[in-house]
Amino acid sequence: MRFVTFRKKDENQVLSGIEINNRYFSFIDFRLPYRNINEFILYATSSDYESFKYPKGDGLQEDSISLLAPIQEPLQDIICLGINYLDHAEESARFKQEKFEKREYAVYFSKRVNEASGAYSDIPVHADITQQLDYEVELGVILKTGLYKATLKEAKEAIFGYTIINELSARDLQLRHKQWYFGKSLEGCCVMGPCIVSADEFGGEIPNLQIQSFVNGELRQNSQTANMIFDIPSVLVELSSGMRLKAGTILSTGTPKGVGMGFEPPLFLKAGDCVECYIEQIGRTCNRLI
Amino acid sequence: MRFVTFRKKDENQVLSGIEINNRYFSFIDFRLPYRNINEFILYATSSDYESFKYPKGDGLQEDSISLLAPIQEPLQDIICLGINYLDHAEESARFKQEKFEKREYAVYFSKRVNEASGAYSDIPVHADITQQLDYEVELGVILKTGLYKATLKEAKEAIFGYTIINELSARDLQLRHKQWYFGKSLEGCCVMGPCIVSADEFGGEIPNLQIQSFVNGELRQNSQTANMIFDIPSVLVELSSGMRLKAGTILSTGTPKGVGMGFEPPLFLKAGDCVECYIEQIGRTCNRLI
Repeated sequence: MRFVTFRKKDENQVLSGIEINNRYFSFIDFRLPYRNINEFILYATSSDYESFKYPKGDGLQEDSISLLAPIQEPLQDIICLGINYLDHAEESARFKQEKFEKREYAVYFSKRVNEASGAYSDIPVHADITQQLDYEVELGVILKTGLYKATLKEAKEAIFGYTIINELSARDLQLRHKQWYFGKSLEGCCVMGPCIVSADEFGGEIPNLQIQSFVNGELRQNSQTANMIFDIPSVLVELSSGMRLKAGTILSTGTPKGVGMGFEPPLFLKAGDCVECYIEQIGRTCNRLI
Repeated sequence: MRFVTFRKKDENQVLSGIEINNRYFSFIDFRLPYRNINEFILYATSSDYESFKYPKGDGLQEDSISLLAPIQEPLQDIICLGINYLDHAEESARFKQEKFEKREYAVYFSKRVNEASGAYSDIPVHADITQQLDYEVELGVILKTGLYKATLKEAKEAIFGYTIINELSARDLQLRHKQWYFGKSLEGCCVMGPCIVSADEFGGEIPNLQIQSFVNGELRQNSQTANMIFDIPSVLVELSSGMRLKAGTILSTGTPKGVGMGFEPPLFLKAGDCVECYIEQIGRTCNRLI
């Protein structure tokens, strides 16, 4: 299932539902009462999944809708992994003039996301407060059940689905304020989309997917999600050893080499740039900086 | 006004309202429809404040209620200031074996709080994952209106009230994972209470209050909130320059010298310890570690 959130062109109502073969159906088309994907995650039963087999109508075509972030308003801050691909760890240490060391422990931080930006939305460049806005393509993971002191098996089974997150980061603010929170939490600086692919599409296994980003058409990041240093179930087990993770939790799993700060000289984003993020089997986001 | 949340002894229903001269009134006693303080913050009108003059009944005595955190379920992660008292900056640098430098910029991070612990609740010591749980008495600030690109005046006027926060922190996890988020976000490790004192009680000015903590009756921290390095309105202006702060945002403003990691050898919390936090004009929290 490919869960989506969209608006019919020239209408205000925001609808969530699923995409089937480039046709967009809302939950209403399946006689389901959920107003958004968070409600679906919290309250859906297995028979609700059955009803996706019987849509009412033919759905909407892509050109008659505007695609929004599948989860527009995350229930809580997004939990992020820092430095979770080895090659990105090296470029990050170089930029921060720190000694590069293989990390024994995962780096966790969070990102305030009042409203996630859609796959094709414009992104504010925040030129009044940062000169170092940077892109980070990441695999996002959404939980369908809560986890506390979970086993690896429970962690794996708690995954609702996967999405693309562009975890935009203001490097100067990130460094200046020592902890990364402020530089990671600028308004509009979390892109999510184009859809959430449910975990069952990967047979319930953690998929290994190609992950890429492009700026103005130029390939910048290119890796495989299997190159993560700390894998998704282990991270969920570690976090849930002390933190209660609720259903609806969003985890962003870190970015590979090739972000703007990794180049010499660095290549930060400026107004007019277009950033594309791609993850195999999920799709593509494409945002213009304004 | 002293906003409180409580449960009548031997009853399950959680009530929010206000405390007047040690009597506890729920919003229902004023014919107000709000189920909790978040709803009051989001929807109350000025005439609702008027109705506090005319309570129905005599309220409940302290011994017939259990006090809970005034905001049991924060709407979002709590935004925290690190290293915001100069004397704490020194002890923290010493513990982390870092060079002590006067900070030019505030340190911001966040703390996941699914459910805040009440002023007299037991706190889990999490001995299976940390040997360095530490206390931090902090002045908490709650916003009643949203802020984005705010002026100092708007920031000051947006303050709903003040509370005590014990921002419990697992130092080993905080350091091991480089960013502090995980070590700050353990289940049950945010105490809030005993009430929220509304900003008008201080004439709308930022108050200077004595702030103290005690472990097993021994004075550990003792300062004045005027000793903050970065004052509350300036912090709100800086954060809101890039982040949209919503009504209901909770800011925890940092802790003075005297936390456990500041002693040589360090004095971390263990099961059975009682931690008391005191802020002048707000009150006292007193929690046992279990």
